[in-house]
Amino acid sequence: MKTDWQLETYLQDRIQLTESALDRYLPGADTLPAKLHEAMRYSVFAGGKRIRPVLMIAACETLGGNTQHVLPAACAIEMIHSYSLIHDDLPAMDDDDYRRGEPTNHKVFGEANAILAGDALLTEAFILLSNKSVWPEVDAEKRNTVISLLARSAGSRGMVGGQVVDMESEGKEIDLPTLEYIHTHKTGALILAAIKSGAIIGDADEDQWRALCRYGEAAGLAFQVADDILDIVADQSELGKDVGSDQERGKATYPALLGLEGARVRARELRDVALTALDIFGDKARPLREIAHYIVDRSF
Amino acid sequence: MKTDWQLETYLQDRIQLTESALDRYLPGADTLPAKLHEAMRYSVFAGGKRIRPVLMIAACETLGGNTQHVLPAACAIEMIHSYSLIHDDLPAMDDDDYRRGEPTNHKVFGEANAILAGDALLTEAFILLSNKSVWPEVDAEKRNTVISLLARSAGSRGMVGGQVVDMESEGKEIDLPTLEYIHTHKTGALILAAIKSGAIIGDADEDQWRALCRYGEAAGLAFQVADDILDIVADQSELGKDVGSDQERGKATYPALLGLEGARVRARELRDVALTALDIFGDKARPLREIAHYIVDRSF
Repeated sequence: MKTDWQLETYLQDRIQLTESALDRYLPGADTLPAKLHEAMRYSVFAGGKRIRPVLMIAACETLGGNTQHVLPAACAIEMIHSYSLIHDDLPAMDDDDYRRGEPTNHKVFGEANAILAGDALLTEAFILLSNKSVWPEVDAEKRNTVISLLARSAGSRGMVGGQVVDMESEGKEIDLPTLEYIHTHKTGALILAAIKSGAIIGDADEDQWRALCRYGEAAGLAFQVADDILDIVADQSELGKDVGSDQERGKATYPALLGLEGARVRARELRDVALTALDIFGDKARPLREIAHYIVDRSF
Repeated sequence: MKTDWQLETYLQDRIQLTESALDRYLPGADTLPAKLHEAMRYSVFAGGKRIRPVLMIAACETLGGNTQHVLPAACAIEMIHSYSLIHDDLPAMDDDDYRRGEPTNHKVFGEANAILAGDALLTEAFILLSNKSVWPEVDAEKRNTVISLLARSAGSRGMVGGQVVDMESEGKEIDLPTLEYIHTHKTGALILAAIKSGAIIGDADEDQWRALCRYGEAAGLAFQVADDILDIVADQSELGKDVGSDQERGKATYPALLGLEGARVRARELRDVALTALDIFGDKARPLREIAHYIVDRSF
């Protein structure tokens, strides 16, 4: 690892790789029906940190794996993430008109097209994952394992299950185990799946697998705790709202349950679990290590 | 094939096999989140002709393939079909309160849960298809081919694409090519994929593959033409509506474009194409042959 290595450059390079691969893999905006493919592309290319693809690539690279071999799965997980955002934003769900400052999918394309664009993106992920010609270097058994892993993480006992419990909990007082259930499922499952997919494609041995799983679990939860903290900090500085207004809105968060300082302690603990897990990789895990810092330290 | 062979018994047996396999493969209604799994099961077990699983099993059996080996894919295609019905019925789409005489998913579980139950069923299909332990006899390469086929048929250039064009066409005058686009995509793609999956799992050679594809294309379209005719015939006898009322409602149908008699001629032509394609299989194709009759002749 060169001494002039910089996280920002590392992230930019991987985001760039992911986005140009997404552009190649997704049907063109002129593919029939054009409106549908336009709607799919609208949300996939609406920005975002691409944290799942980046984590998958970084996990694979930590093991000395080939970046090109992991790109189809990295793009598939981003398609799954994009579909989940489109559906979460729908009037029947969170009813959000804006995401990252832009109108949400259903505001631009209508509710029916947004539902279908989400459905199509989820399906497209599996078209890509099962398309042997885009990753001939990865054998069928391994492709199957990655398909299984991503499907389980995205399904009723993973991400979708987390979203259901999140909605059920709205406006109710919930305890810490329920909050952790929501987050380990709604966001944690897919982040862990990103790391695990990178590990599978990078041919992790048993010790490496265990270490990366520990990293992925801790980093996934830390990501959510930090997001909860950031929401409040941003609220306070930008909107002048008090800490705890999220709780009044009926939304359970870590700061609401643990207090702002308690949530920061939890985020730091999780970050340190993630960092310790990387010890066996030495300097090769520098990207994953810096990403753990990047995820958590922005909330200090 | 025994002389006392009866289509009704054949269908009942395969439907029974499919439904008990679906019950085994789907997470139990007490799996957390219970509401979600209850919603998924509600629609999967709401009846239906199970035409896609039956066609897949029949195609595999025509080739002498093992019925047990095809069950996971047969259940997966039914999960995909169920998800598509849940989403089609949503207020933002067809806004249907009843399906097969029972309240639709969103009427029972609410709109958000219905969207998520659909999402979860689509995902569950890929969990099942990539689950090596449920069909160890089918190798990873073949499982992958079936995953690819079903995903493509269900995605933006298949079923979802057909639904988008169907919605875009509502209330507009459309021509026969557009109507055929809608149906070959919205229903035909998944029916053809059922036949093709059976052919792959049953180890079709090139001639058998071509014959089954021809059968699947014709039968898939015939199914829709017959459905359109039945809608009108049922309307006339049960509701006293005139032929053409579908057209007034802004829904394009074969009888609306070809006239009732013209649609019947088209259904018969398609049935005969399907039957001729089966010639190379001799008596082994009796189930597929009788199913083609069953699909079309009910509309006479």
